[in-house]
Amino acid sequence: MNAVRLHQYGQHPVVEEMGEPRINGPHDVIVRIGGAGLCRTDLHIIEGQWKEKSGVTLPYTLGHENAGWVHEVGSAVENVAPGDTVIVHPLITCGYCRACRAGNDMHCVNSVFPGISIDGGFATFLKTGSRAVVKLDASLQPKDVAALADAGLTAYHTVQKAAALLYPGTKAVVIGAGGLGHIGIQCLKALTPAEIIVVDRSEAALALARSWGADHTVLVDGSQVSKVAELTNGQGAEAVIDFVGEGGSLEHGVPMLRRAGSYFIIGYGGKLDVPTIDVISTEINFIGNLVGTYNDLAELMTLAAQGKVTLHTMTYPLEAANDAISDLDGGRLQGRGILIPA
Amino acid sequence: MNAVRLHQYGQHPVVEEMGEPRINGPHDVIVRIGGAGLCRTDLHIIEGQWKEKSGVTLPYTLGHENAGWVHEVGSAVENVAPGDTVIVHPLITCGYCRACRAGNDMHCVNSVFPGISIDGGFATFLKTGSRAVVKLDASLQPKDVAALADAGLTAYHTVQKAAALLYPGTKAVVIGAGGLGHIGIQCLKALTPAEIIVVDRSEAALALARSWGADHTVLVDGSQVSKVAELTNGQGAEAVIDFVGEGGSLEHGVPMLRRAGSYFIIGYGGKLDVPTIDVISTEINFIGNLVGTYNDLAELMTLAAQGKVTLHTMTYPLEAANDAISDLDGGRLQGRGILIPA
Amino acid sequence: MNAVRLHQYGQHPVVEEMGEPRINGPHDVIVRIGGAGLCRTDLHIIEGQWKEKSGVTLPYTLGHENAGWVHEVGSAVENVAPGDTVIVHPLITCGYCRACRAGNDMHCVNSVFPGISIDGGFATFLKTGSRAVVKLDASLQPKDVAALADAGLTAYHTVQKAAALLYPGTKAVVIGAGGLGHIGIQCLKALTPAEIIVVDRSEAALALARSWGADHTVLVDGSQVSKVAELTNGQGAEAVIDFVGEGGSLEHGVPMLRRAGSYFIIGYGGKLDVPTIDVISTEINFIGNLVGTYNDLAELMTLAAQGKVTLHTMTYPLEAANDAISDLDGGRLQGRGILIPA
Amino acid sequence: MNAVRLHQYGQHPVVEEMGEPRINGPHDVIVRIGGAGLCRTDLHIIEGQWKEKSGVTLPYTLGHENAGWVHEVGSAVENVAPGDTVIVHPLITCGYCRACRAGNDMHCVNSVFPGISIDGGFATFLKTGSRAVVKLDASLQPKDVAALADAGLTAYHTVQKAAALLYPGTKAVVIGAGGLGHIGIQCLKALTPAEIIVVDRSEAALALARSWGADHTVLVDGSQVSKVAELTNGQGAEAVIDFVGEGGSLEHGVPMLRRAGSYFIIGYGGKLDVPTIDVISTEINFIGNLVGTYNDLAELMTLAAQGKVTLHTMTYPLEAANDAISDLDGGRLQGRGILIPA
Repeated sequence: MNAVRLHQYGQHPVVEEMGEPRINGPHDVIVRIGGAGLCRTDLHIIEGQWKEKSGVTLPYTLGHENAGWVHEVGSAVENVAPGDTVIVHPLITCGYCRACRAGNDMHCVNSVFPGISIDGGFATFLKTGSRAVVKLDASLQPKDVAALADAGLTAYHTVQKAAALLYPGTKAVVIGAGGLGHIGIQCLKALTPAEIIVVDRSEAALALARSWGADHTVLVDGSQVSKVAELTNGQGAEAVIDFVGEGGSLEHGVPMLRRAGSYFIIGYGGKLDVPTIDVISTEINFIGNLVGTYNDLAELMTLAAQGKVTLHTMTYPLEAANDAISDLDGGRLQGRGILIPA
Repeated sequence: MNAVRLHQYGQHPVVEEMGEPRINGPHDVIVRIGGAGLCRTDLHIIEGQWKEKSGVTLPYTLGHENAGWVHEVGSAVENVAPGDTVIVHPLITCGYCRACRAGNDMHCVNSVFPGISIDGGFATFLKTGSRAVVKLDASLQPKDVAALADAGLTAYHTVQKAAALLYPGTKAVVIGAGGLGHIGIQCLKALTPAEIIVVDRSEAALALARSWGADHTVLVDGSQVSKVAELTNGQGAEAVIDFVGEGGSLEHGVPMLRRAGSYFIIGYGGKLDVPTIDVISTEINFIGNLVGTYNDLAELMTLAAQGKVTLHTMTYPLEAANDAISDLDGGRLQGRGILIPA
Repeated sequence: MNAVRLHQYGQHPVVEEMGEPRINGPHDVIVRIGGAGLCRTDLHIIEGQWKEKSGVTLPYTLGHENAGWVHEVGSAVENVAPGDTVIVHPLITCGYCRACRAGNDMHCVNSVFPGISIDGGFATFLKTGSRAVVKLDASLQPKDVAALADAGLTAYHTVQKAAALLYPGTKAVVIGAGGLGHIGIQCLKALTPAEIIVVDRSEAALALARSWGADHTVLVDGSQVSKVAELTNGQGAEAVIDFVGEGGSLEHGVPMLRRAGSYFIIGYGGKLDVPTIDVISTEINFIGNLVGTYNDLAELMTLAAQGKVTLHTMTYPLEAANDAISDLDGGRLQGRGILIPA
Repeated sequence: MNAVRLHQYGQHPVVEEMGEPRINGPHDVIVRIGGAGLCRTDLHIIEGQWKEKSGVTLPYTLGHENAGWVHEVGSAVENVAPGDTVIVHPLITCGYCRACRAGNDMHCVNSVFPGISIDGGFATFLKTGSRAVVKLDASLQPKDVAALADAGLTAYHTVQKAAALLYPGTKAVVIGAGGLGHIGIQCLKALTPAEIIVVDRSEAALALARSWGADHTVLVDGSQVSKVAELTNGQGAEAVIDFVGEGGSLEHGVPMLRRAGSYFIIGYGGKLDVPTIDVISTEINFIGNLVGTYNDLAELMTLAAQGKVTLHTMTYPLEAANDAISDLDGGRLQGRGILIPA
């Protein structure tokens, strides 16, 4: 089969022929890919940002946002059968550790992360585990939802945590109206009664944000902190959800918080750099966010089937993976890029 | 009356004669001070760290950990009467804003903070508000509990938040076994079944920590991170409670966290400085802590009356305030220093 | 002024002249009534159901859903001024007890309940306390929101508790699509992503329920339990919200619960009568609901100002109170009845 | 092997020879029983109370509180190996449904319950599933902890839910100081700072309760409600935990609740029978409790290994099962009865 494989950090991955994955363990599931989402994390992997954390041996296949059809299953698999349409939770988890049993499976102590630490889904076939596959409603197509598997899941997971703080009259600031942000805005609309303030560098992105349900939009032009202050009666927002996490987003985002507010970090690349006196004198919180649980993904698929969350996508043949990567890196990719095997 | 007043940042405060406070508003309460706790924050105020945040006009009277007896009350006060023994919540709050009504009175939008933003309790009399006074059980003396009004309250408030994460089998790291830490350890014992690991620079402080209930102690000698790793099966702790917040505590404390763990910031002076990739790849949280609610203080007084939280104190006459300040600054003050007016 | 006063249980109240209320205490507030909602509880009071619980001395003025304009204030009142448009929280609370400080002011240990335990708002003027008045957005009129003060507040408070159980894919059953139910449905839409199943005896009420956002409606015809079972894949609903609480609602409502589900009791009159083996073998819960907090009412006013919750009302002159009572009792009152003083 | 099998409702079970269980599925685990707890539910099963709910075909083997050593495992089992010492969670769960993934595995939609719906552990060997076995600390022996598998688990699970309501100064009433109650009291001590009031019919049981940590004890003599009122300043208790659930416990227990309090139902046999006006006028809750999660059981094993929860047991040879049953039924069994195969 064809796969998009990274041979060296700092160089483009290569589309090349490789052997198909095989069932080795009783809980293995092989999925024929219907669509695989391209994510900013793929750029960060290529740059080498994940080199130490993943410890993966090169070359390997990228792709951690996958959906398709079950192709083959291991001997102990009962929850899916070949032919089932599925979206794939990004982690293969054990189901036996405390985290898996406590509804925090993204912290499974035995997890592996296809596309990060082993071969991923930029390929005709992906090997995952039986606990990772979510059956799709008949109304949903793999290529239309694939990018919800990680980007969407992370946005949903974060919004769900933020929702506990967001009652009628509160304000939520969303930093970044790109691929993740547009899912985050829709999730905020679906789960909370908060007023949504979207902050972005691009007027075009802000116009789209309004169409997805943003109540207010603020252009990044140096005055964004004072504009958010105006929109919040000088108090700041109960929640700031930062989908950017680099390039000044934190420096300007943290002063947008209300006393006792919470800052949700999703985007990364930059630094959290705050004097402790500022943390304690206003009792603010910084909340990390990493993908989400299997149940989170199932809930997000419910929202998708109900039409409450839709994705803007651009599709590319798998063979054109490097075009997609260039478009994403160059800011030419509107919404999420989806690779589709022949 | 005599009062300990700060005339200039960077200089010692002065013990001097000043007029007694008077009842002006219907909810005013004047307390005759039985004991007032000296706190590291008083040193930080003298240094000027709070200059911008408090905006107080010098000279003013220090002292934000106060207990004593009600001396006089305003016309609309019904909850206390002259003669009542009370501990004083550090903030005067309005009772009408959302925060006051929601059980977050330390975020009252109309609050004032005696000893920080107006005259405090290093004096014979303190003016506070009717909502700030907690009646004391007959078994408790003002001088014995005064330091619980802020230091103790902050420790209790933090532990109460951490308690939600701490089930049997979890580990809590306490950084700093000093004035706050020893209250924090007792609160952890009273509220949670977690194993407590105490980290400090001083062997003597660690010995005391064991007597208060620490299950494990770790000396700060450069190997503290790996020692905590050993004590937590290489996983780290579900909660790290940092009573120091400066001088390397964060740099070494953050790596002590388990995946999905929470880092509670109480001590301050240093910087929170963490790459966002580290925040998201392990989904950790940083939680600010500022004093606590009135109800928190009432709960802490219950623990004190039950003998579950006791304070180690050294008393000084009010007139010897600068001796106490020097002892605290020079590391000669064991437990908490209490100033007692003549 | 005129007032609607109950002289004897079991008899109609009387519209009669009485003296205006006066400011006695520093926190008193007198409100000129712009509209006062009539509630099924008024019928229950007249029947004598509240005789023991309220302990009120007859005659007294009914009316516990009040809105209008501040007319006069006590000496210590600073949060409102004469002329302010307000809705009145049903309870006068102290602001000093633990419940008031913990965000549970409806459990204030010093509360009084105008219209239940002292004179209420079916009159030209009502005396309440400064902590009870919520200022209204300029877009809202007293007569349009008055019935939100108790009926709406109770519905909102309940839905807010239920919301914690209601993630995408869950089902909420609403029993009773009358005065409270139609607010409850709108609150469910505003706060949760749950699918809403409305159960009522009246096809007309169900048709209205669909217009307010019900996803499914079920007529009470003996087969309602099996119809809810069908709509929930045979599992039952995560939450059942019973606005009726009498006349068979519980007998049929409890079997609509899913395992580990919660049954919210708002309507009353009937009995909760369930074998304990049924409670433990499915681990279900029964949750009582009593009005709500001041903050709940403020949040509900935000939803009203945002147009997310609207009330269907029929207005009557105060003098026609007994017509309104007869219409409510006879099932001729669509939505909520509002009494308006001349 | 020998097993204790029920052939007919209303008759004593029979100790008889039967074939050993065999591994059929990839996740099967066979445990050699080291001790199996006898529970009041076994009496209820024999009486026929569970006939409809379990739907089990007679004859079958009783015993749902099991501990021992892993004897044989299915082909896909990796979490335990033959020889491991384990306690057995009462349910065999699938690990794939929402409940299993959400930390509510006792609500697994595919669960089976050995000893209730299939053959249990009053036998030499028990067949369970790989997800049900908790490895034991070296300090713990199967016969000493077996009764924690269900009775203890239910008590722990309930206390853990109640703990969220129990801050310093609150009161928890425990009804019933028998087999479950004595574990509940120890769990309350380990997890909460609440004052514990124990209510029982037996002075001897109350004396034991004091030795396990009860702060107050109240004899059931008709005045128990007023005595609890006295111990709670006339307010009632924030939590009532009813381990009896029959014979008048609810009638007297419900009036012991404080406003907004929660009544936890564990024992069963009687009826919950409360007017809805009483539920709403004080906003009280009734909370069902059914065993607990796997993680709950692991946490309880931690408390057992730490010496914070100990069981009082009387052991019987498996062959003497009917003696144990008679002793339990006749009130002659102190603590929990444990059957031990030869």
